[in-house]
Amino acid sequence: MKATIERATLLKSLGHVQSVVERRNTIPILSNVLIEATEDGTIRLMATDLDLQVNETVEANVTQPGATTVSAHTLFDIARKLPEGSQVELSAAEGKMQINAGRARFNLATLPRDDFPVIAEGDLPTKFELPAATLRQIIDKTRFAISTEETRYYLNGIFLHVSDEAQPVLKAAATDGHRLARVTVPRPAGAEGMPDVIIPRKCVGELRKLLDELDGTVEISLSESKVRFGLGSAILTSKLIDGTFPDYSRVIPTANDKLLKIDPRSFEEGVDRVATIASEKTRAVKMALDRDRVTLSVTSPEQGTAAEEVPGDYANEALEIGFNARYLLDILGQIEGDTVEVHLADAAAPTLLRENDKAPALYVLMPMRV
Amino acid sequence: MKATIERATLLKSLGHVQSVVERRNTIPILSNVLIEATEDGTIRLMATDLDLQVNETVEANVTQPGATTVSAHTLFDIARKLPEGSQVELSAAEGKMQINAGRARFNLATLPRDDFPVIAEGDLPTKFELPAATLRQIIDKTRFAISTEETRYYLNGIFLHVSDEAQPVLKAAATDGHRLARVTVPRPAGAEGMPDVIIPRKCVGELRKLLDELDGTVEISLSESKVRFGLGSAILTSKLIDGTFPDYSRVIPTANDKLLKIDPRSFEEGVDRVATIASEKTRAVKMALDRDRVTLSVTSPEQGTAAEEVPGDYANEALEIGFNARYLLDILGQIEGDTVEVHLADAAAPTLLRENDKAPALYVLMPMRV
Repeated sequence: MKATIERATLLKSLGHVQSVVERRNTIPILSNVLIEATEDGTIRLMATDLDLQVNETVEANVTQPGATTVSAHTLFDIARKLPEGSQVELSAAEGKMQINAGRARFNLATLPRDDFPVIAEGDLPTKFELPAATLRQIIDKTRFAISTEETRYYLNGIFLHVSDEAQPVLKAAATDGHRLARVTVPRPAGAEGMPDVIIPRKCVGELRKLLDELDGTVEISLSESKVRFGLGSAILTSKLIDGTFPDYSRVIPTANDKLLKIDPRSFEEGVDRVATIASEKTRAVKMALDRDRVTLSVTSPEQGTAAEEVPGDYANEALEIGFNARYLLDILGQIEGDTVEVHLADAAAPTLLRENDKAPALYVLMPMRV
Repeated sequence: MKATIERATLLKSLGHVQSVVERRNTIPILSNVLIEATEDGTIRLMATDLDLQVNETVEANVTQPGATTVSAHTLFDIARKLPEGSQVELSAAEGKMQINAGRARFNLATLPRDDFPVIAEGDLPTKFELPAATLRQIIDKTRFAISTEETRYYLNGIFLHVSDEAQPVLKAAATDGHRLARVTVPRPAGAEGMPDVIIPRKCVGELRKLLDELDGTVEISLSESKVRFGLGSAILTSKLIDGTFPDYSRVIPTANDKLLKIDPRSFEEGVDRVATIASEKTRAVKMALDRDRVTLSVTSPEQGTAAEEVPGDYANEALEIGFNARYLLDILGQIEGDTVEVHLADAAAPTLLRENDKAPALYVLMPMRV
């Protein structure tokens, strides 16, 4: 293998793939990135953790096609430190990879490309496209609710499924049992009849990073066990979580009869302020609703008390309810408009939050005893 | 106590004092900040860890003088989250402090001001002034060499002493046994006959933060056991390290006969690049000097090799010497000019680095076997 590539191109591309590589690996080759220079003047970089694989193809001047694998984090660190604007010469021979750029020369240990594990995608019968902006929205408005409890592995991702309602829709949901976030978008062509899938948290994170730089559309292909995201020059392939997502629609309240309409920014700032003295463990904030007024308060045995009044539209009977401040802030942080609707039943019932009944996103929050 | 203060003033001032407060304290009052409102329209904020104390006086509208103490970090967090431009009402009564700003109200637990420990400064016979810029330079060019080994407590600070040479000077030195940094400045009026003192690392850190915002001069007063820095509205008082700093002048080489003159930026970048593959433990970089050329290299059993040639003025016999890359980078990061002089003797002898023989700063670095 022998190829020359611009340092900026190499660095950007390594930036995309190296974060898939775990810092500690019991299998040495999983620390490596596969570098493959092809006759058609491209270099393909690939990294994997056996469950998630990313590969990116970039332009290069290839004088001798070939492939090898070297430490992903080391190569990334080297590329970061090479002089801006430099041309990087990569050549592999006899179990070593030589990297020359400017006055610097590196000779890195390699492992054979044939030992590099590639995820077998198999047949991916469902194929559809989503605008990058839609996919960003789906992720941003749901990922915070993904459970981190490893024993509930079926909650460790975003659940994606289609549904026939007034209109055919694609729904994305995440929950940790305390809160639920769901986004509904029109069903894209090709998604009809797709299997229900759970996309793992790490895949969601890497996908979101790649989406940062993408404008166009994302090609999504999936089967019951794998998903593949085509993002321009990068392809992300992931195993899906092999489990059953609970029937979350049952926890979405439909008969909450008390409605508060409030400015999400004032609400958010008020919660954030009174939560300053909340104990790290419970993070409990009390909301006392009265006619057109919400009083947020926290009582801490060690620290004292905090209270803030926030104006809001509320015409029902007085109600006191408690929430985890962190969960409430996560949701309010996703509300972009100038009003949030809070649909309440009583102090023990799940509460529904959304911008309005047309908004694609909907949130359910379990109350806490305060 | 009852007073009103601008949120921005309170926040800035708490920012200065709260970092002295340790996160964990076995003595509860050490978590608190003393707030004292005086008749002359000021609030004094004071924090301490029993070895270091900072107090700052700011303007406020005081309607009832008095004093109390509340959790420093909680008050700081509250001030951070209060609306920009708001007026903060502080009032203390019956073991509580009430804080009102905008629509928010806090009622915090207090501890009596009489229980707040104040460092007795005693008599501070030596008094002199240093420009803030000079003190910043002294700290920046030496603090990285302060030892972190707690058993060598007498190295856990910056050593300050006066000396009569061709001119009377004030010297600041720090060392961890592997490297030494020393800055020499003209002796300020009033510093003659001052005792040798060791200023603890934490005091150095807090002092440096306060210097960030200061232009004028700093008033320094000291005895054999205490030092006090007057920085405009803030006063920092610290105990000194009770120990004997080693006679460091003996390790500064005077007869190193091989001179390399090199561009510190190319040198720094080269060392940083080849060190990418150095093992975390040793961080060893080899320098091979030959006529007008330095070859930097690292050999790692796991990773491979790295080398870079950097041009430099060198007219002596060829020499190979090894250094800890981190230590070398720390020193080169402090060289501002376009040349650094490296005075060498042999592969086992301490090496002297400096910008030139007029530069206030001088560095000694012990070599490593490579």
